[in-house]
Amino acid sequence: MKSVDLNCDLGESFGAYKIGRDEDVLPLISSANIACGWHAGDAVVMSRTVKTAAEAGVAVGSHPGFPDLVGFGRRNMNVTPLEAKAYVQYQMGALNAFCMANGVKLQHVKPHGALYNMAAKDEMLATAICEGIASVSEDVILLGLSGSAMETAAAKCSIKFASEVFADRAYEEDGTLVARSKPGAVITDENEAANRVVEMISNGTVTSVSGRKISIKADSICVHGDNEHALEFVKLIRAKLYENGIHIKPIGEVIG
Amino acid sequence: MKSVDLNCDLGESFGAYKIGRDEDVLPLISSANIACGWHAGDAVVMSRTVKTAAEAGVAVGSHPGFPDLVGFGRRNMNVTPLEAKAYVQYQMGALNAFCMANGVKLQHVKPHGALYNMAAKDEMLATAICEGIASVSEDVILLGLSGSAMETAAAKCSIKFASEVFADRAYEEDGTLVARSKPGAVITDENEAANRVVEMISNGTVTSVSGRKISIKADSICVHGDNEHALEFVKLIRAKLYENGIHIKPIGEVIG
Amino acid sequence: MKSVDLNCDLGESFGAYKIGRDEDVLPLISSANIACGWHAGDAVVMSRTVKTAAEAGVAVGSHPGFPDLVGFGRRNMNVTPLEAKAYVQYQMGALNAFCMANGVKLQHVKPHGALYNMAAKDEMLATAICEGIASVSEDVILLGLSGSAMETAAAKCSIKFASEVFADRAYEEDGTLVARSKPGAVITDENEAANRVVEMISNGTVTSVSGRKISIKADSICVHGDNEHALEFVKLIRAKLYENGIHIKPIGEVIG
Amino acid sequence: MKSVDLNCDLGESFGAYKIGRDEDVLPLISSANIACGWHAGDAVVMSRTVKTAAEAGVAVGSHPGFPDLVGFGRRNMNVTPLEAKAYVQYQMGALNAFCMANGVKLQHVKPHGALYNMAAKDEMLATAICEGIASVSEDVILLGLSGSAMETAAAKCSIKFASEVFADRAYEEDGTLVARSKPGAVITDENEAANRVVEMISNGTVTSVSGRKISIKADSICVHGDNEHALEFVKLIRAKLYENGIHIKPIGEVIG
Repeated sequence: MKSVDLNCDLGESFGAYKIGRDEDVLPLISSANIACGWHAGDAVVMSRTVKTAAEAGVAVGSHPGFPDLVGFGRRNMNVTPLEAKAYVQYQMGALNAFCMANGVKLQHVKPHGALYNMAAKDEMLATAICEGIASVSEDVILLGLSGSAMETAAAKCSIKFASEVFADRAYEEDGTLVARSKPGAVITDENEAANRVVEMISNGTVTSVSGRKISIKADSICVHGDNEHALEFVKLIRAKLYENGIHIKPIGEVIG
Repeated sequence: MKSVDLNCDLGESFGAYKIGRDEDVLPLISSANIACGWHAGDAVVMSRTVKTAAEAGVAVGSHPGFPDLVGFGRRNMNVTPLEAKAYVQYQMGALNAFCMANGVKLQHVKPHGALYNMAAKDEMLATAICEGIASVSEDVILLGLSGSAMETAAAKCSIKFASEVFADRAYEEDGTLVARSKPGAVITDENEAANRVVEMISNGTVTSVSGRKISIKADSICVHGDNEHALEFVKLIRAKLYENGIHIKPIGEVIG
Repeated sequence: MKSVDLNCDLGESFGAYKIGRDEDVLPLISSANIACGWHAGDAVVMSRTVKTAAEAGVAVGSHPGFPDLVGFGRRNMNVTPLEAKAYVQYQMGALNAFCMANGVKLQHVKPHGALYNMAAKDEMLATAICEGIASVSEDVILLGLSGSAMETAAAKCSIKFASEVFADRAYEEDGTLVARSKPGAVITDENEAANRVVEMISNGTVTSVSGRKISIKADSICVHGDNEHALEFVKLIRAKLYENGIHIKPIGEVIG
Repeated sequence: MKSVDLNCDLGESFGAYKIGRDEDVLPLISSANIACGWHAGDAVVMSRTVKTAAEAGVAVGSHPGFPDLVGFGRRNMNVTPLEAKAYVQYQMGALNAFCMANGVKLQHVKPHGALYNMAAKDEMLATAICEGIASVSEDVILLGLSGSAMETAAAKCSIKFASEVFADRAYEEDGTLVARSKPGAVITDENEAANRVVEMISNGTVTSVSGRKISIKADSICVHGDNEHALEFVKLIRAKLYENGIHIKPIGEVIG
C-alpha cells in the first residue's frame, strides 16, 4: 500500500501578528513544521500550536530558521557550521519542551526558508544541521528536499531522512527545483500539479521541465495553509491521493 | 553530614560580547545556571557552556529570563502567567537540547533577575513558572529564594524545590531580603558573610538585620564569577565550608 | 471655528506580518502615529508609511514604544528615566530620517501602549519622554492623554502638548479613563460615542461615568483602522464633526 | 599641508555588555563611527557615546550594520537594495537624534562589517546605501574602502566620499584588500604599517602584496581601540604622522 505524508508550516504567528489558517489546515495534513521563535513563532504560539496539532493527531516537527524575524528567515545568512548546528539544537530543544508538555514525540526537523535552500546545496551546512539533530536524538527525522545535499548529509550522520517534494514546482533533469526566476518554474494548473504528485508517489517519477521523465523519491508533500486557495489545493491533492489509493500518514510511518 | 550546593550564573556571554569568567569559577561550584538566549547567552555560548560544565562535573540548570537582552533581564515586565509558563518551557527546552547533546541531565531551573525577584513575591507568577517546569519534567528542581512564593508554588505543583540563600545579603525578620536601597542590605565584611552561610547550613538560622535570630533553609548558596574579587570570595566560602565539615554537592544531591 | 485632529496608529506591520488597513484609514485622518521598529514596524514599513502619509497630506508623528516586539509594546516595563529618554530620542530620530527623505516635518510624538499608559500617570517617566523630545526639537508636539502627567511634564519641559481624547472610553470625574476592568469603561453605542467627542470639542466638557459633567480638552481624537468596523466608526465621527461645523486638521494646526 | 583623518568604531557596548576602550581612544582620533543599535550599541550607549565624542571634539558618524546583533553584523546577509536603503536611513536617523541632542552635526556614514565588505564589491548594494544617505542629507559623507564600488556609487548619487585605508592590511595590485585567508594579508610589523600610511598620504602610493607600487587615495585611516595594544598602535601612527608633518583632522576637513 502506497502512502505519503502531507506537511505544512504552522505556528508562524508572532505576538499580535497572525499568519496562516492553522486551524483550517490542521485536519488536512499529517505532519506540522512548527516555527521555533527565530524567523517566526513565539513561545506562546508554539505552546498553542503543539497542543492543537497533538489534539488533531498531526505529527509535530521543528521548523528551525535563521535568526531573522524581520526577513522571515528567507534571506541567506553566512553562518558557520558551528553556528548552524547550535541553532538547530536550540530550536529543536525549544519545540521539544512543548512536545513533552503535550505528551507527543518530536517527529522531525525541517529547516525553514533560506536555511532549507542553502542546506539543499551546501553539504557542509547540511551536515551541521544533521549533527545538530543527531546530537539531540538519533530518532528524529530530517525532512528535506528530495535528492539534495541534505539527504547525503543525513546518511553520513546516520539519521533518518524523508524526501520532500513540491506539487507546484517544476524540476530540472538533475532533480533540483527549477529556479523561480526561470519560465515554467511554477506549475499553475492545479490538476496537473496534483497528478504530478500522484505519479511521484505511484511510480517514483516526474516529468522534468525539459520533458524528460526522471526518478524522484516522494515521502512527503509540502502544502500551505495561508489562504482559502491554498486550502482548496490541499483538498484537491487529498482527493487525488484517495482516488489513487494512496494513504496519508505522518512521515514517521511513511518511511517506517 | 551537612552539605550545600554552590550555584553560579554561567554562559552570559552573547555573540562578540563576553561576560564572566566561566572557566575560572567552574572548578569552584557544583551547579551552573546557564542563560538561555533571552536575557543573555546565545545558542553557541549555551552549547559551549553546557559542554564545559559537563566536563567539569558541574550540574546544569536552565536560567530563564525575560525577553529583554538590552536590559539583561533585570527590568520588571508585566507578563501574563500564560506567557511566563511558555517562556520557561521554551528556555528549559532550548537548554535541554544541549544537555542531551552532552549526555547530561537538566538538573534545575533558576529564574533570572527580574523574573526571579517578581516570582519570589508573586505566587501566581511563581505558579506559572512551576507549571512550566512540571509540564516538561517532574524531576527538574526549582531553585529559588528560600521561604519565598516560589517555594509555596513548587509545593502546589508537586515539583522539587531547593532553597537558595545569599551570603552577602541581609535578611528581614520575615526571611525576605533587605531591599538594596536600605542601609545594611549588603554584608560587606566577607568573613562575616562566609560565617553567616556556615551558620545557615549548620544551624538553619541567620541573624536578621534587626538582630533577631530567624530560621532559614539553605540548600544552595548563590555565588558569582564576574571578576577576581568574586572568585576570591567563592574560595573563602569554600574554605569556611570545609573547615566546618560541610560538603559541596550539586542541588540534586543536597535535597536528595 | 472649532477644529480637531484625528490621529491613528499606522505602520504597525513588520516584515512578512501585516496589521492594519493603513491605506483605507489614511484618507480619513489628519495625523499618523507611525511605529518605529521597536514594538512594531520595521525600516521598510516606516519608509513606505511615511511616504504614503506624506502623499495623503497626513501629518507624521513618531510612535515610540518599549523594546518588546513580541508583546507589541503593551506590557509595562520598568525602564529608568535615562532609558526612556534615549528610547524616545532613538525612535524619533529613526522616523525623522524617513520624514527628511520624504520632505515632511516630524509633527509630533505619541508614546505607544504601555509607555503611554505609564507616562500618563508617572510624571518622572513623562518628563524623561519630554526631555527626549525637547533635546531633538523644541518644535515637536507631545500628543498625550488629556489632563495627564504628560501634560504637566510637557509644560515643565517647555514643549508643545496636544490633548488626546477617546471617543469610546468613559471618563472618571477626575478626567482619567475608567479602567477597562470596570463596568461602563467602554462606550458601546457608536452614536453616543461620536456625540461625546462633538461635545468635548464644542463645549470642552464630557459626562463622567458617575454622571457628572466635567471639563476636558480635546485637541485630537484617537481612532483606529484595524478593520472594517473601525473604519466605519471613523466615518461616523467625521460625519458628526462635519454636521457640527468642526474642522479636521493636523494637530499642529489645531493647537496652532 | 597634508592631512588625514583617524577613524575608529565606537559605542559598540550593548546593555550590560561592554566592548572597547572608547574613553581611551577618543583623544587619539578625529572621527568616530558610532554603532546604531542593530549589530551593536543601544540607545543609551549611543546617547553617551555621542556626548563624549562631542565633548572630545571628535566628529560623529553613523555606523549602520545588518540586523544581526548575535553575529555583530559580521555575517553576509542577502538583503535587497530596498531593505539596505531603509536600514541605512533608519540607523542614520537614530544616531542623528543624539547628534541633535548634543548640538553636533552628523558628519559621515561608514557601513559596518559585512555590510561594508559587501558594498565594497557590490555596486547595487553600495548605491542603495548612497541613496539612503542622500535622501536624509546631501551633506553627509560616505566613508568607504578606497577605490571600491562605494566610491563609484557615491559619485553616481552625488554624495561626498572619503577614502578609507587600512594600516595593517596588504593590498592587491588592483587596490583591493588581500583576503585575510591569504598569506601576507596582514602587516604584522607595526613600524612598517605606520610607514605605509605615511606613504599613502604623502605620495598617494602603496606597495602591493606582489611588490608593485600602486596608487591609493587615503583620506582616513581606520584604527581600533579594543585593547592596550591597539591603542599603542594608534599612538605610533600619530607619532609617524606628526614626524612627517601630516595633520590629523576630521574627514569633513580633510576632503574639504
